[in-house]
Amino acid sequence: MKKLNIAIIGLGNIGSYLYRYLNDNKNILTEKNNCLPYVKYVSAKNKKRKRNIKINKKQWLNNYLDATKIQDVDLIIELIGGSEGPAKKLVFNALKNGKHVVTANKALIAKYGDQLAKIAEEKRVNLEFEASVCGGVPIIRSLKEGLIANKINKIYGIFNGTSNYILSSMDKKNKDFIEVLSDAKKLGYAESNPSADLNGDDVSSKLKILSSLCFNSFLNNNVYVEGIKDIDKIDINNANKLGYKIKLLGYAELLNNKIYQRVHPTLIKKESYVASIDGVLNAVIIDGKPVGQSTIQGEGAGPAATTSALVSDISSILRGNIKFPFSLSIKERKKLKFENISQRYFSAYLRFEVIDKPGILSNITNIFSKNNVSIKRLVQNPDKNKKSSSIIIITHKSKDFFLNKILKEVSKKKYIKRKPKLIRIDDN
Amino acid sequence: MKKLNIAIIGLGNIGSYLYRYLNDNKNILTEKNNCLPYVKYVSAKNKKRKRNIKINKKQWLNNYLDATKIQDVDLIIELIGGSEGPAKKLVFNALKNGKHVVTANKALIAKYGDQLAKIAEEKRVNLEFEASVCGGVPIIRSLKEGLIANKINKIYGIFNGTSNYILSSMDKKNKDFIEVLSDAKKLGYAESNPSADLNGDDVSSKLKILSSLCFNSFLNNNVYVEGIKDIDKIDINNANKLGYKIKLLGYAELLNNKIYQRVHPTLIKKESYVASIDGVLNAVIIDGKPVGQSTIQGEGAGPAATTSALVSDISSILRGNIKFPFSLSIKERKKLKFENISQRYFSAYLRFEVIDKPGILSNITNIFSKNNVSIKRLVQNPDKNKKSSSIIIITHKSKDFFLNKILKEVSKKKYIKRKPKLIRIDDN
Repeated sequence: MKKLNIAIIGLGNIGSYLYRYLNDNKNILTEKNNCLPYVKYVSAKNKKRKRNIKINKKQWLNNYLDATKIQDVDLIIELIGGSEGPAKKLVFNALKNGKHVVTANKALIAKYGDQLAKIAEEKRVNLEFEASVCGGVPIIRSLKEGLIANKINKIYGIFNGTSNYILSSMDKKNKDFIEVLSDAKKLGYAESNPSADLNGDDVSSKLKILSSLCFNSFLNNNVYVEGIKDIDKIDINNANKLGYKIKLLGYAELLNNKIYQRVHPTLIKKESYVASIDGVLNAVIIDGKPVGQSTIQGEGAGPAATTSALVSDISSILRGNIKFPFSLSIKERKKLKFENISQRYFSAYLRFEVIDKPGILSNITNIFSKNNVSIKRLVQNPDKNKKSSSIIIITHKSKDFFLNKILKEVSKKKYIKRKPKLIRIDDN
Repeated sequence: MKKLNIAIIGLGNIGSYLYRYLNDNKNILTEKNNCLPYVKYVSAKNKKRKRNIKINKKQWLNNYLDATKIQDVDLIIELIGGSEGPAKKLVFNALKNGKHVVTANKALIAKYGDQLAKIAEEKRVNLEFEASVCGGVPIIRSLKEGLIANKINKIYGIFNGTSNYILSSMDKKNKDFIEVLSDAKKLGYAESNPSADLNGDDVSSKLKILSSLCFNSFLNNNVYVEGIKDIDKIDINNANKLGYKIKLLGYAELLNNKIYQRVHPTLIKKESYVASIDGVLNAVIIDGKPVGQSTIQGEGAGPAATTSALVSDISSILRGNIKFPFSLSIKERKKLKFENISQRYFSAYLRFEVIDKPGILSNITNIFSKNNVSIKRLVQNPDKNKKSSSIIIITHKSKDFFLNKILKEVSKKKYIKRKPKLIRIDDN
């Protein structure tokens, strides 16, 4: 029986879960893949941490980088995290030394994926990163294999469970962002420092990787990123009245031979599939030819779901299924044009909190018309006690550049009581 | 560059679409898979049919079975259909002669899959059938690869677009089965002879294949199958009032080490994901460990979606990714116990149309209690004009055997005006 020697580097929650899984399931994996996955070495920053797994003394490496040098390591599983430092050093060295690599590190792949893929290709080894995007949702393998026939023109969805949990809880419980975030931390749905989850950076990394796979292009940093921390309960209630939910969505799309990559809170119709995804789930929607629209949904995070993804990558290597990390050889990947979001057309929701005085509404609508943005719907809610008024405007499709220009222009007016809001609408 | 010689046998809508696709996309497929897919031969019953594709005279085989004998054929794509006759002959002979096979034929795989897999394994060739289950939904590849880590305890969903289209149209348009079926035929959503789609046989074949893949068992014919032709507009309206939709669902589940396979109309909660799938879409839900619940949704039929699936299989063979057709070697697959549906517990919806006379309700409820089936909810709708009454009963979880015993017993009563209804409820 063939055997693949594995080194797991990083034994946090995910590494420990994977270690236990591989020990408990080595027989079935061997039967399915005709090759035994054998965890020969491990390494972790804190050797003494309580892990509930049995590790033999001989398995511990003195230095994590030894895994890249030792002869009898075939596959290195990188679970350190972070785009720089030890994780970067480990993966670059591993590939250069002809070791297969499986990683859950989206930041690393989103930043150095092209360079790493080039080395993997030269050394004819696998670099697999299913676990870096949407946890247990087998989206990368589906793009590379199950949906390989398709020319994809759009991929979008809910790629971050924490922010989706917060937005759907704000909606259901009619609570403020801060309140819900504190609940989410207590329940373990948000990390103690959740900034990458909430400011859109996590989604942005995943989107870059997916976009590159869908369009056979190189990784590109031209991504518009906006998080959810400015979303108010009021906006969620307004959206509801207008027939929408607010979701943090990532989009990569090919329009007129240009790619747009964007991450932002979005008003999406209540009846749509995406609007129905609540809580910590992830969902990915792919528009392709010939297949039409495909959707994959599942657990996006946590040790169990991540292990499911890691093991699919490990199995692919066990079967000797050598492929290009991004589907195509580096020579065949394309340099496509990535366009700025300011050039794209959107319908938008805008909210202005103003002093309740005559002439203000006409001043605002005048600014819209000056910028050639036409208004589809306008709702004014006066608050007599505060002598203020809330003006909600839904626009027809207009260039993002002008929507933002209006926002800026109105922001400067003296009659504005609070920073105005602009949320884009998905009206496809 | 490596090359794989292909023979396409069967050039109906799907075969012609695939032929065109492979010609138009050979470059990108070669780049992605490091091997050229070359359609060397074709065969079809009717050579002269209009197809809008260019076929060279040299490509036509004199006899379709020649594909299994000629040296320079590596892969045969069977698109004839049917579990017996030419399709069976072709696939058996192809594998025996060491040719790879890709097929969209669910009836053949559901019936002879185990025997065929044995031959494929002996000859070390691929037998791939992604296109046989749910068209463009990459469910088989996901089970074999993307979700390979998981121990699956349940797979279910909407596996037939025609019947789902009919049920959702009956609901939306408040029309009768016959009326909607006739519309569906005009719109091309139902074949001229749609019996396999409507009586559950199509779902049953797909379910057997999925079940076998999920549980590492052999194909098993113990499937309870019930179609949708007895579903009335009245049942759909009643379901709506009770908070349910009626869907034709297929289920394979492992309960106490026994497998239950069943296909039947089901009342499922309106808010559930499955209830929201309307029209011709297919959706598959998988419960597995460690991943949790995963869902894959997409186009279930038609030449475009089927080609997407066929090409994923062809690509797998181009990459030389030899695997067992059912994930595991025939030696490792298990003989599991398949239990009859009569032993499973369900909540159920029953509807009795009775003469409106005193004592009948108590007679019916008496039969329920005699069989130890307890009633959760009872609604009686008298129709004074017809001197009749409609009794709707929702039961607590009870053994299917007793639910059917009650149905039979009440059916015989003289006060019954029409055949009573029993529809199982999904209350998980």
